[in-house]
Amino acid sequence: MTLEQRICDIACRAKIASSSLLSLPTITKNRALKSIAELLIAEKDSLLEANAKDLQFGMEKGLSPAMLERLRLTDAVINSMVTALHELCALADPVGKIEDFVKRPNGIQVGRMRVPLGVIAMVYESRPNVTVDAAALCLKTGNAVILRGGSEALHSNLALAAVLKKALIVHGINGDAIQIVETTERKAIDILLTQDEYIDLIIPRGGEGLIRFVAQNSRIPVLKHYKGVCHLYVDKDADLEKAVPLVVNSKTHRPGVCNALEGLLIHEKVADTYLPVIAVALRDKGVELRGCRKSTAISPLITSAADSDWGTEFLDLILCVKIVGDFEEAKTYIGKYGSQHTEGIITENYSTALRFLTEIDASAVMINASTRFNDGGQLGLGAEIGISTTKLHAYGPMGLEELTTRKFVVYGQGQVRE
Amino acid sequence: MTLEQRICDIACRAKIASSSLLSLPTITKNRALKSIAELLIAEKDSLLEANAKDLQFGMEKGLSPAMLERLRLTDAVINSMVTALHELCALADPVGKIEDFVKRPNGIQVGRMRVPLGVIAMVYESRPNVTVDAAALCLKTGNAVILRGGSEALHSNLALAAVLKKALIVHGINGDAIQIVETTERKAIDILLTQDEYIDLIIPRGGEGLIRFVAQNSRIPVLKHYKGVCHLYVDKDADLEKAVPLVVNSKTHRPGVCNALEGLLIHEKVADTYLPVIAVALRDKGVELRGCRKSTAISPLITSAADSDWGTEFLDLILCVKIVGDFEEAKTYIGKYGSQHTEGIITENYSTALRFLTEIDASAVMINASTRFNDGGQLGLGAEIGISTTKLHAYGPMGLEELTTRKFVVYGQGQVRE
Repeated sequence: MTLEQRICDIACRAKIASSSLLSLPTITKNRALKSIAELLIAEKDSLLEANAKDLQFGMEKGLSPAMLERLRLTDAVINSMVTALHELCALADPVGKIEDFVKRPNGIQVGRMRVPLGVIAMVYESRPNVTVDAAALCLKTGNAVILRGGSEALHSNLALAAVLKKALIVHGINGDAIQIVETTERKAIDILLTQDEYIDLIIPRGGEGLIRFVAQNSRIPVLKHYKGVCHLYVDKDADLEKAVPLVVNSKTHRPGVCNALEGLLIHEKVADTYLPVIAVALRDKGVELRGCRKSTAISPLITSAADSDWGTEFLDLILCVKIVGDFEEAKTYIGKYGSQHTEGIITENYSTALRFLTEIDASAVMINASTRFNDGGQLGLGAEIGISTTKLHAYGPMGLEELTTRKFVVYGQGQVRE
Repeated sequence: MTLEQRICDIACRAKIASSSLLSLPTITKNRALKSIAELLIAEKDSLLEANAKDLQFGMEKGLSPAMLERLRLTDAVINSMVTALHELCALADPVGKIEDFVKRPNGIQVGRMRVPLGVIAMVYESRPNVTVDAAALCLKTGNAVILRGGSEALHSNLALAAVLKKALIVHGINGDAIQIVETTERKAIDILLTQDEYIDLIIPRGGEGLIRFVAQNSRIPVLKHYKGVCHLYVDKDADLEKAVPLVVNSKTHRPGVCNALEGLLIHEKVADTYLPVIAVALRDKGVELRGCRKSTAISPLITSAADSDWGTEFLDLILCVKIVGDFEEAKTYIGKYGSQHTEGIITENYSTALRFLTEIDASAVMINASTRFNDGGQLGLGAEIGISTTKLHAYGPMGLEELTTRKFVVYGQGQVRE
């Protein structure tokens, strides 16, 4: 078979498998998830062995230490996958739930039933745990999944896929419900993105380059976020006691992730008193501050920002600081430099807080809370397959419900349309 | 300005306008909708005059009588627009509603606020009433809209757009919230479809050719349905008293629309007794029947179907008839020839009915009800901007809620992430 035929065959099998998943009881899906957890432990040695091959090739190819770290499977990584699988079992299965039931004047009863999306393709980079996470979330929601991980994790992913498939078969589930693209050819992605006859959704996870490539070449809907350029706006009515820990936590709790703070806006009325305190707290955590002209005049800890700093996702201990004249200016700044990911305000003023919630466009808007809370687990979704900063279908972290859609169900007793 | 610059300018203005719509009170939106209704009546003469120009050009261009009919504005058409506007005022505004509120263990309160999608572009064919309907639905949901109607309706659409804009201005709403693409150049659509920086959603309405063109060339998410190939499956446990009127109504109530019946499946155990009765009832309504070999042996009213008949959207008084051996065969047939639009079963068997609801994949699945009920009004949405047969974001008729998305809102009291 040519590469085109192989990818097409994978997609077609996934479609067939997805149909058989529609009537799969929750209990069977949960049993399969538990089997995956058991098999991950039972087959740990062979998984680590496969991973060692990837690490060996990675070192030979000169991958950075950070990349190698992301690639590495350890007891701890496997245990965290196992924990996540058990947590997933405990979550409610959204499939089959009928919502918004109404009885129409002619007596027909109309509801909206949650159903799987169908076939989901994940295109992602090195972390092999995404293989298990994504497969498990898709299985729980009755979706067939096609996994296309990074070439540097191929051996690990193949070993994990064998575990996943074994668990399916044990419980009589169509093995094509979880498939892996076994080639590392880049062209496989191009072909995957044209299988709109079979695939319902593409979820890319990785660097901005990968995501832009997928978004621009896909004929299939894509759920994505390019980057997280998150801001906190310290309003004139902010409580300094709250502002300091919120800014510090948002920036330094884990600077390398998408919900970390990248820009601090501060109202000019409180800049003189608040900024020096905040700047010291950040400096103590090793944060480099790059600010507007006004801010550098207030604190010697702030150096002049370059034009290119505004709106940059540093993913590092660097923060932009901008003093704004009023709410409107903060809003305009966020509209220009934000990435519709996470935006927060620190204020004790009721009306200003409500205005911020209404007028700021981002997947999560927060009052007096750390930007680090924009995460499926923290927001209560229980599990997360990714985050969307575009508005169609899902906006923000995507949990189980976001892996489903709703069809109309009509219960009639012979009614016809007049 | 070049065409490219003009389209880009329209899209950019729409984006700016959409931001100002975020905080627009429902009462102001409703007042503007009422003003549109009043102005449609007050300026009826000039609207009819503009429409007469389109009709004149249409006749000269040799448009079919059916096309000219769709294009024609009359007192009745204008009155129906006015009625729809008043009905829309009475519907609840979904924007700002906070759903699924939860309090997390750390005390943050998390909700999901319904917000407008942003900027919606409608690309549609001749019916000028779509101009008013779409603009009104978008205004009610706080979305800016860009309207690109058919070239044959240009004068009508420009006159309607002037009315729409006037109503916005009267109520202090940014006039760019409703814009019309004033050129009939086809290339304008190509350019529109690349404005993913400004436009959040494209909704094409028209023939399959237009919709496929839009879907294949858009960088922006598209909500669409290509066609409606709807089936009814008369199960072995069907009640004949219900089956006859359901089949007749589904096929003949309005044969030219997407939720009309195109295929009848009948279980072989009841085919001998039921099919002749159903065939006579359909013949009496002027329906031509094309069926499988077995069906032609049962009723002389059925002629042999050609291979190309199966899965065809006739939009006419023609119906395909297929005798199936069991539920599984009906399901496989629907999977192969259906268009995920509307599928129904006629049965008195509880388990078979539930199985059909679960296992059949379509935007609406129905038990003992006419396929003609798959319509926003009939299903209780109150208003409809279109119907989607793809699963992302919306599946089935799209009402006001489907023109919104949900962002996370977080109410904190200074919580940081541990």
